[in-house]
Amino acid sequence: MYIPTFDDMLAAQARIQPHIHCTPILTSSYLNDLTGAKLFFKCENFQKAGAFKVRGASNAVFGLSQEDAAKGVCTHSSGNHALSLSYAAGRRGIPCNVVMPRTAPQAKKDAVRGYGGIITECEPSTTSREGVFAEVQAATGGNFVHPYNDPRVIAGQATCSRELLEQTDGLDMVLAPIGGGGMISGTCLTLSNHAPEVQVIAAEPEQADDAYRSFRAGQIIADDAPDTIADGLRVPLKDLTWHFVSNHVTDILTASEDEIIDAMKLTWKLMKLVMEASSAVPLATIIKNKDRFAGKRVGVIITGGNVDLDLLPWLN
Amino acid sequence: MYIPTFDDMLAAQARIQPHIHCTPILTSSYLNDLTGAKLFFKCENFQKAGAFKVRGASNAVFGLSQEDAAKGVCTHSSGNHALSLSYAAGRRGIPCNVVMPRTAPQAKKDAVRGYGGIITECEPSTTSREGVFAEVQAATGGNFVHPYNDPRVIAGQATCSRELLEQTDGLDMVLAPIGGGGMISGTCLTLSNHAPEVQVIAAEPEQADDAYRSFRAGQIIADDAPDTIADGLRVPLKDLTWHFVSNHVTDILTASEDEIIDAMKLTWKLMKLVMEASSAVPLATIIKNKDRFAGKRVGVIITGGNVDLDLLPWLN
Repeated sequence: MYIPTFDDMLAAQARIQPHIHCTPILTSSYLNDLTGAKLFFKCENFQKAGAFKVRGASNAVFGLSQEDAAKGVCTHSSGNHALSLSYAAGRRGIPCNVVMPRTAPQAKKDAVRGYGGIITECEPSTTSREGVFAEVQAATGGNFVHPYNDPRVIAGQATCSRELLEQTDGLDMVLAPIGGGGMISGTCLTLSNHAPEVQVIAAEPEQADDAYRSFRAGQIIADDAPDTIADGLRVPLKDLTWHFVSNHVTDILTASEDEIIDAMKLTWKLMKLVMEASSAVPLATIIKNKDRFAGKRVGVIITGGNVDLDLLPWLN
Repeated sequence: MYIPTFDDMLAAQARIQPHIHCTPILTSSYLNDLTGAKLFFKCENFQKAGAFKVRGASNAVFGLSQEDAAKGVCTHSSGNHALSLSYAAGRRGIPCNVVMPRTAPQAKKDAVRGYGGIITECEPSTTSREGVFAEVQAATGGNFVHPYNDPRVIAGQATCSRELLEQTDGLDMVLAPIGGGGMISGTCLTLSNHAPEVQVIAAEPEQADDAYRSFRAGQIIADDAPDTIADGLRVPLKDLTWHFVSNHVTDILTASEDEIIDAMKLTWKLMKLVMEASSAVPLATIIKNKDRFAGKRVGVIITGGNVDLDLLPWLN
């Protein structure tokens, strides 16, 4: 198992810079008043392909040799990694095959196809996803870019916190949602090297709290098919992300489905940001645990904005 | 009739700077490809109180003498001007009386009260509104800040285009929606003095096209009660805004209700921006008239983001 380094993050930053946005930081005086904290929202919903995942995907795609690139890339993903890998592969002009759960939001499927990605559908469980993917990979021979358990991907995601640090004048902690742990691992990679005094706190849906239970148990506990509105966070930790979570994460906090939806709607209403349910989990945990954050300068990573506008959770 | 000057805009900019955001410019490579233009979106949906109107309201409130300020301010409005004037008055610590129809959305009333505004309700008719407003003004002696036909308000709105020019490297034209004409008048004020080569194009719903017809007739034509999803644009031009429209606007383009809703949803989906239907009218006219904008550098003012998230037009 190769653990990506701070130098890998720096190399990723130089490699992907032509293909991504340095996304803005937004603040909300209302949310600062509500929470007692100073919140700095890193708006990866404005990122290319609508999510932070384009950082890791671009790092993997543009780091391939000419020979490897010619065979294309492939992956399985609940959504944003599929979009992002399709986007990056399209920029490089190579094929991209993705296995997606048939239940993934239609908006994400449409966007994958819009970027030129080729979709094979599976059932919404880890078992089905991995089985179908093995067939697709065998058939195409493409380079497998795992959505999170890949050092190239983690080094790419790590560039987000690097920007966040450069754009803010000192932080006490950074919060990001945790599913498979790619963003959290990248955050740990950058902060543990570059700003070790900054805490990393992961936020997870109660209904998909495998990382929370893993963290407390001291070993990976994986659920096969957790059900949560935060559709980006249904996947389990793997060895590489567990390395970062177990070594560098300060704590994992959870929020209920209602708390996530309330935080999502609040952000749309107050900050005028279209963001995914997954992106609302950190704010939900801050609102729920105000004492812990009061008086702190807190970076909050808004991971993506690819939402099905015809299926908003507060209207169901 | 006092016509506000470029110096009034400069004074407004200095006066309101502590109370407003310099809002960011966002771009979309997808929308640039779709239209053939280079679009620069000025995001006043991120503005304090959720709309550009806080610029004019703050200029009026903070320009009052101590003596006048002590009596407070008042207005009639069921929309963003009511919120904005309440916000500005709250910042100065003076009373703000707003006459609102009893049928106005509860969320808007709550927001006005949240900023410290005092609501007097009227019946949803012009007769009732004018009668009740006259009583409130007589009782309080507050300074009347008209939503748009007021030189202080227009000088305040004019600061938006000043920022837009500073944030972009040369523009061929600027588009903004037109209702009563406050934002368009401010845009004309700044551009006609500071960048007279930049065209000003107003965008209006077909179903509330009184400014379009006025522009072609050479005189104000006011409709009694136009009906459009773009609820901020139902009010008619008045003498001061007509001065700017008739002297400085290059053209007025219109869009249908469906075109407005499509442009609104497209912006939410692609740019991850929560914005009002009124704010989508300029993009709708650009998509409809691509030949006119192809190859041009176009500033587009996104006027506000105060949307009822439970009543989205594409879900009705």
